[in-house]
Amino acid sequence: MSEAKVKFESVFPRIVAELEEVLVQSKLSKEAIEWYKKSLVYNCVGGKANRGISVIDTYRILTKKSELSDDEYYKAALLGWCIELLQAFFLVSDDIMDASKTRRGQPCWYLVPKVGMIAINDAFMLESAIYILLKKHFKKETYYVDLIETFHEVTFQTELGQLLDLITAPEDEVDLSKFSLEKHSFIVIYKTAFYSFYLPVVLAMYMAGITNEADLQQAKDVLIPLGEYFQIQDDYLDCYGDPAVIGKIGTDIQDNKCGWIINKALQKANAEQRTILDTNYGQKNAECEATVKKVFLELELEREYQEYEEAVVSDIRKKISVVDESRGFKKEVLEVFLNKIYKRSK
Amino acid sequence: MSEAKVKFESVFPRIVAELEEVLVQSKLSKEAIEWYKKSLVYNCVGGKANRGISVIDTYRILTKKSELSDDEYYKAALLGWCIELLQAFFLVSDDIMDASKTRRGQPCWYLVPKVGMIAINDAFMLESAIYILLKKHFKKETYYVDLIETFHEVTFQTELGQLLDLITAPEDEVDLSKFSLEKHSFIVIYKTAFYSFYLPVVLAMYMAGITNEADLQQAKDVLIPLGEYFQIQDDYLDCYGDPAVIGKIGTDIQDNKCGWIINKALQKANAEQRTILDTNYGQKNAECEATVKKVFLELELEREYQEYEEAVVSDIRKKISVVDESRGFKKEVLEVFLNKIYKRSK
Repeated sequence: MSEAKVKFESVFPRIVAELEEVLVQSKLSKEAIEWYKKSLVYNCVGGKANRGISVIDTYRILTKKSELSDDEYYKAALLGWCIELLQAFFLVSDDIMDASKTRRGQPCWYLVPKVGMIAINDAFMLESAIYILLKKHFKKETYYVDLIETFHEVTFQTELGQLLDLITAPEDEVDLSKFSLEKHSFIVIYKTAFYSFYLPVVLAMYMAGITNEADLQQAKDVLIPLGEYFQIQDDYLDCYGDPAVIGKIGTDIQDNKCGWIINKALQKANAEQRTILDTNYGQKNAECEATVKKVFLELELEREYQEYEEAVVSDIRKKISVVDESRGFKKEVLEVFLNKIYKRSK
Repeated sequence: MSEAKVKFESVFPRIVAELEEVLVQSKLSKEAIEWYKKSLVYNCVGGKANRGISVIDTYRILTKKSELSDDEYYKAALLGWCIELLQAFFLVSDDIMDASKTRRGQPCWYLVPKVGMIAINDAFMLESAIYILLKKHFKKETYYVDLIETFHEVTFQTELGQLLDLITAPEDEVDLSKFSLEKHSFIVIYKTAFYSFYLPVVLAMYMAGITNEADLQQAKDVLIPLGEYFQIQDDYLDCYGDPAVIGKIGTDIQDNKCGWIINKALQKANAEQRTILDTNYGQKNAECEATVKKVFLELELEREYQEYEEAVVSDIRKKISVVDESRGFKKEVLEVFLNKIYKRSK
């Protein structure tokens, strides 16, 4: 585990203790307090924590500090953990909605014995923790309302993306006429890019005092296409990545996912290929999956992806190169994100 | 339908239109926008709207205005609808957690064809609407942050009550040793009293400019026991109310509910009666239910309830009588609530 991650995870027990204290004050029963603590640890820890750590990295770049004081580190990490809490809130509920089985190598929370549908209320309580922590640590800051509004806005955007995804690609009802590259773009930007890319940077910007509307816009103009690119890469790797490297066997084709590859295929397919896709996509069946992959091969989707990647990365680089640093925003923030993502294989 | 309710419901289409506009701006697909509008109407309208209307009634009393301007009415009603949205968020998800079948005389939202577990995300989007509306209409007010924090706090309190309820009384695992009057009190205060009684009044107080900490405390000191009393009444009516009057047949005994009646019974029962309760409570079986009711009769729980009611109402009246009106808070606000509730039969 990277040093940055070890340090980030080391502050989580303090966050749990702060939340526990709130419940103790309310005189909640011991059993319920233990339940909540278990949910916090089970659902927030064990992932890559990239989003949370990005807050700290970005804050360091913006303030030009290589070393943060303990207090400063804790505050930045707390904002990072708020993103991890937001993600936990989404993942716990997404797993119920998608009837998923495992998450981060363990059973989904709702499948843990005795949990079941109580997981829905547990998800709510993960979300609520965000605002308890913000109030406790940021209420006196001038940007306190901005933090709250940013979390509200990004939460709603993620929910909009999730809604469109759920009604466009229900697992049990294949209808490719509902798919389009345009819808796919909306889904990935709203469901992933805002909370995973824009949110960490904007939180660090507020904390660093770089809050000019133009700077927030500069960040968004790069981070949203970057987030879209990241998710398209994810869709690509699900189909073409090496299972030994990405750590799982892709199931998007069988799961009727509205990913970039199928949408690109639908754009290029002739009538015959389209019929094959209509019949075989979203079927829980390895043969159908192989048939779909054969059409993908005919349509040269790997090449399409490479072309897309080069084009979007070139566009992003151009945008970064003209970033105005005069008010304190830094190109480096965006370069670091791009470098983590470009040509990744997992 | 009362005139007050007709007027309150007449503003809802404008609220839906405001939320629709946000989605149109985001370029969400038409189908998804229609989905959200349908969820808003299905889940927010059709109840008694007591909580929402209470905001307006309380605001009128505090400002001593019998007539509100259209703008003023809309703003107060919007706060009321925010409570209805909060309640819709809870009810949609509670119905999934409880595997309920109907709500307000129609199928629960998650049982509507094509909805299913998407209802979880729909519930989130009902909650998010609160903060979109508050931002749009109250951002310039000095009490904007107070409104947001109040909603956050009450939301979390309701979730705490729901958690304790869910782990104390799971429908499929009867264990009366988990029950107690103390836990029951926590559950009803947190799950019901805060959002149903305290929240409408505190929102109206902020809007009326009566925001002294001592006045908020005076409101809480009466409204929390009043809300507890209301829910205990509810538990009583479920067991002893006239189905023709309350509009439903009580199922708390068969559903293993942690209500006031069973907790009072457990407090008074001798060893033999306790054994009967252990064996027969929470069984989906009319005979067991009758056996439980026989023990309730032996324990004279109707009389216990009447005694509780007289004691708590006398205590509440005493508290109201000493309310300090010097900073603008009004006893009348609390009296109106008490009069709606005292000795109700439905």
